[in-house]
Amino acid sequence: MKSVRGLSRRSVRRRTGRVLVEGPQGVREAVRFAPEHIVDLYVTTEAAHRYAEFVDPAREAGVLVHETSDEVLAAMCDADTPQGTAAVVDWSPAGLGSVLDTGPRLLVLLTNVRDPGNLGTVIRGADAAGADAVLVSEASVDVTSPKVVRSTAGSLFHLPVVTGLDIDETLAALAAAGIRRLAADGAGESSIDDSDLTGPHVWVMGNEAWGLEPQTRAACDEVVRVPIHGHAESLNLAMATTICLYASARQQRA
Amino acid sequence: MKSVRGLSRRSVRRRTGRVLVEGPQGVREAVRFAPEHIVDLYVTTEAAHRYAEFVDPAREAGVLVHETSDEVLAAMCDADTPQGTAAVVDWSPAGLGSVLDTGPRLLVLLTNVRDPGNLGTVIRGADAAGADAVLVSEASVDVTSPKVVRSTAGSLFHLPVVTGLDIDETLAALAAAGIRRLAADGAGESSIDDSDLTGPHVWVMGNEAWGLEPQTRAACDEVVRVPIHGHAESLNLAMATTICLYASARQQRA
Repeated sequence: MKSVRGLSRRSVRRRTGRVLVEGPQGVREAVRFAPEHIVDLYVTTEAAHRYAEFVDPAREAGVLVHETSDEVLAAMCDADTPQGTAAVVDWSPAGLGSVLDTGPRLLVLLTNVRDPGNLGTVIRGADAAGADAVLVSEASVDVTSPKVVRSTAGSLFHLPVVTGLDIDETLAALAAAGIRRLAADGAGESSIDDSDLTGPHVWVMGNEAWGLEPQTRAACDEVVRVPIHGHAESLNLAMATTICLYASARQQRA
Repeated sequence: MKSVRGLSRRSVRRRTGRVLVEGPQGVREAVRFAPEHIVDLYVTTEAAHRYAEFVDPAREAGVLVHETSDEVLAAMCDADTPQGTAAVVDWSPAGLGSVLDTGPRLLVLLTNVRDPGNLGTVIRGADAAGADAVLVSEASVDVTSPKVVRSTAGSLFHLPVVTGLDIDETLAALAAAGIRRLAADGAGESSIDDSDLTGPHVWVMGNEAWGLEPQTRAACDEVVRVPIHGHAESLNLAMATTICLYASARQQRA
């Protein structure tokens, strides 16, 4: 129990290469997409039946399933209400090279993202929009933190996530791979509605509060805005990112 | 101070018709869009200079501006970090009839929304997408709660919000006004990308966890889905709503 609780600490996650996945949605997706990486699956005796949909396949796949009490589960978890199940999963970031080797057509690069909920929600949105991977710069929130993992709602196991990237080097590598770099910025000269988004490209997103660093924006091939039709100053980061990715998906899949 | 703190209670907000607006973004938008409804504006002595952009116009508009300490402000507020300013504002929901009288072309109806952050983020997204109003059913979270108000980032003062609506009656009133009712549902027969969204319509959204009630979906003119291209099960409510509204804005403004 203590060793699971320790996964709320970044140093422990980094040393062990393990993350804590809380709640049925995340655990189910780990069982479906990465059963060989599940170290331990915990489920309350009461919830084992309710979640038979993924607990049974987990057992059949050889996952160690531990029935436990609500109290023990709550003590292991970071969430106030883990909803009866959690799992410890080996997880490691993808490499940028391996992502580029697959010939990606739609990517997102998050620079200086600070809010765990935003990062997780962006990963979920990128998954839904069919992006090929999510790239995260250094000086961003840790992808393995329990709040990020929860916010991905299982999408962490659906697509590669690359972390700790140097922004300048990454932009150079993307250009070398023939991937157009689109800086998302409210001051963009073109809008998502009139940009050609059919070719391979990456959306480069800035910090929640202060946006993109000027040198990052300048290093991109084009600055594109999400149009604001009403009086709102902006959209939040996760919304803006998802709208950009869906605009891309619409054009690329038309 | 106590009377401000009391606004964290729904009964007090209902009796007084007042809401607490916390943080510079919300207070600035109240000053810009509803200065005559501001009862009191609080700003720390330290922040008064930093926020001169809206504190000075507020004073000129006759708003009662009170300089206070960080401690007093924190004690008045619901947020952990009100960032140096807050305001008490008279706010009342719009009437459905008055919204329909303006000939709206783009609306959203939220049914059974339960999370304050979701509701506030939807109001912000609807504002950004240029929607004419946000309609909220009864049995939804209270629009005036501090967390909702914070999540709107000032958009609460930008467009009409109608609350406490009976779903069936509202759908009937919308139809009578010539507004096409689109149920947003993952099982929709058409997608946002191939639906005709040029005419006046309303997006009807369900609960975060269980979606639309079957009778609500059945009462709508069409069921439309946001396509999921990857492995994600769904998008969260605020994201799905904003993507739908932006799809509408793109077609209506093309």
